[in-house]
Amino acid sequence: MLNKKSQKIYPIEGIKISSVYSKMYKKRRYDLSLIELCDGSLVSGVFTKNHAKAAPVIISKKNIKNKKIKYLIINSGNANAGTGQEGIKDVIKYCKKISDITSCSVKDILVFSTGVIGERIKVDNISESIPKLISNLNQDNWQNFSKSILTTDTCTKISSKKLKIKDEEITITGVAKGSGMIMPNMATMLSFVATNLKISKRELDNLLLELTEKSFNMISVDGDTSTNDSSVLISSRKTKNDYKNLSQKEKKKFYDCLDSIYIDLAKKIILDAEGATKFITINVKKIKNKKIGKNIAMSIANSPLVKTAMFAEDPNWGRILSSIGKASIGKYDISKLEIYLGKYLIFKNNKLNKMYREKHVAKYLKNKKIDINIVLNNGNDEVIVWTSDLSYKYIKINAEYRT
Amino acid sequence: MLNKKSQKIYPIEGIKISSVYSKMYKKRRYDLSLIELCDGSLVSGVFTKNHAKAAPVIISKKNIKNKKIKYLIINSGNANAGTGQEGIKDVIKYCKKISDITSCSVKDILVFSTGVIGERIKVDNISESIPKLISNLNQDNWQNFSKSILTTDTCTKISSKKLKIKDEEITITGVAKGSGMIMPNMATMLSFVATNLKISKRELDNLLLELTEKSFNMISVDGDTSTNDSSVLISSRKTKNDYKNLSQKEKKKFYDCLDSIYIDLAKKIILDAEGATKFITINVKKIKNKKIGKNIAMSIANSPLVKTAMFAEDPNWGRILSSIGKASIGKYDISKLEIYLGKYLIFKNNKLNKMYREKHVAKYLKNKKIDINIVLNNGNDEVIVWTSDLSYKYIKINAEYRT
Repeated sequence: MLNKKSQKIYPIEGIKISSVYSKMYKKRRYDLSLIELCDGSLVSGVFTKNHAKAAPVIISKKNIKNKKIKYLIINSGNANAGTGQEGIKDVIKYCKKISDITSCSVKDILVFSTGVIGERIKVDNISESIPKLISNLNQDNWQNFSKSILTTDTCTKISSKKLKIKDEEITITGVAKGSGMIMPNMATMLSFVATNLKISKRELDNLLLELTEKSFNMISVDGDTSTNDSSVLISSRKTKNDYKNLSQKEKKKFYDCLDSIYIDLAKKIILDAEGATKFITINVKKIKNKKIGKNIAMSIANSPLVKTAMFAEDPNWGRILSSIGKASIGKYDISKLEIYLGKYLIFKNNKLNKMYREKHVAKYLKNKKIDINIVLNNGNDEVIVWTSDLSYKYIKINAEYRT
Repeated sequence: MLNKKSQKIYPIEGIKISSVYSKMYKKRRYDLSLIELCDGSLVSGVFTKNHAKAAPVIISKKNIKNKKIKYLIINSGNANAGTGQEGIKDVIKYCKKISDITSCSVKDILVFSTGVIGERIKVDNISESIPKLISNLNQDNWQNFSKSILTTDTCTKISSKKLKIKDEEITITGVAKGSGMIMPNMATMLSFVATNLKISKRELDNLLLELTEKSFNMISVDGDTSTNDSSVLISSRKTKNDYKNLSQKEKKKFYDCLDSIYIDLAKKIILDAEGATKFITINVKKIKNKKIGKNIAMSIANSPLVKTAMFAEDPNWGRILSSIGKASIGKYDISKLEIYLGKYLIFKNNKLNKMYREKHVAKYLKNKKIDINIVLNNGNDEVIVWTSDLSYKYIKINAEYRT
């Protein structure tokens, strides 16, 4: 809801996409997409840690171990979660349809779903749409794809960049969806990022793990980890240059670019958080380790009391202090703690800063983007988490979700 | 908010209370209480695990190690948390005032505060009220006491019972407060329970620990553990019979009565949960151990998505499944899981129950009291957690708390 309009999208050589309306929703909109990868492409994926994994997650986790993924099929409107063996059979049915037409193996297909949990998926709608999906495949369909995966989202989340390394043009494009039920554990709701850079599976896996941890695993709307979270990174391996032969400086250039795409997509999910009126960045600094930093940041990010105070533009910093205190942080001397809202130091030496003036901070909280800065002063590590406020509209959206 | 009117209150021999208006609030109301214990009384206490402990908690945790507590002083309107050394000095000041008048040692006083975090407490208001507090002490002031500790609470929480053991009358009376910032960790916001039964300190400690874990530690309004949580159990030791000399059956009779007081007070907090329109009981059955059961129950209880679905009276059980799945439960075969809303079996064998009719459950959810029953079928233990729904009014109360 706080999102702005999108930017230029660079297609990825070797990757084609198509999207259709398969009647998952009553209202006409894109709700089903197919991605075709050129031969030689590689795919890495991380999936939800939720014990109640959706059928598409169970299948994709298995199939991604193959090194020759050819298709990815993604629907919105139904999560195919809580559907057990029947849900898995449903997926196999429409994968067979792809296999029949293209002669690729069912094992070389990844499947993703997002939407209502606990209802059987409309297999026929999907199967009947597959011929059209296959005939419409095109390099330039990222925009429609990003539309087709939305549920309660109010806008698309796309991030796309190009860079030059050794005179070769490298493109990276990613899309994501997510607005509620967002506190990903190893991946967000759904995210697809692709590049043409030639890279090994192991290196691709490492990049995905590292970047997902810094981006999607550092956001929370409501502390609810979904059954369907999936994040994939694709390389069509179309460049002549191979990642492994790049210099350290060139590797860093690519890493930084990919990193900015992941951070951008993660932030875009928070900007579109259900009912959000504020985009809140929580910086936890000078910490012993990232785990403690994340515990603190997530404790603040998931506190309904902090979130409602931010919604009300009320500098009720005591709720931030209380959230830090309830986090699992081991032995810690609270007198070392500093709390800032924006540039304003509020709490230090275990008491209110004498220079603190509530009216200044109240004015600061009228901004759409709020920084909560926490300094622990017992280490040198740092963590950033992004979150949203909790508004009447969050309640409205989630109370009326299925009506 | 869902609470009903109160019942008969039995005074506890040897325990006197008084309450006054000390101008902590703008509006005239009881906001400060003093409890005087007869010589020989014993007090057990458990306190918040929040790292940012309030000044009164720090002092009470220290003083309770003495075996001769004489006074408890309790205020609402200011939590005296996040106030560091100054906050502690403030407490010492008004404790000295009690000490000056009564000649009891400052170390024999316990202190409790609840209200806004991060503001200095009005020491003079308290000190000036102390003579009146002392002169008004009376056995029959439990009702006023229960009023004086309320903050966002809309009603008092009192539970009182008497029972006869070996022809002696034993009375137990308790009060509690709490409505938001409620997911106690070893104690609730504030709770005071007293009995005349003669009992040792060790036995009193054990009873308090066991009963707090079953009651206050099993409720959650919003997953926010407060800086001031404190729960004390007092024995005035006025009976001739000593607990240690009771038969097993008599001990059980006393235990059951005390147990019912704790459960009653804990439930009354949830019944008055901020903005609540539903009282939700989460039963997790046939579990390996209580820790896993509590993880699951709290994951459901703290899910904003489950809470808004309950508010909307929407049988969106997929959100319950997702909350169970995201809980820390170790290795578990999800096909053993059963989910019920009330008596209605919804999910079993990893799929929707064929007999499930959404309209029946939708009708059931119109009740004020909702049972969510989860059966894991991998053990014989059981856990019960109580929680509330998440409504527009919760947002309103917490957005406007300090205005």
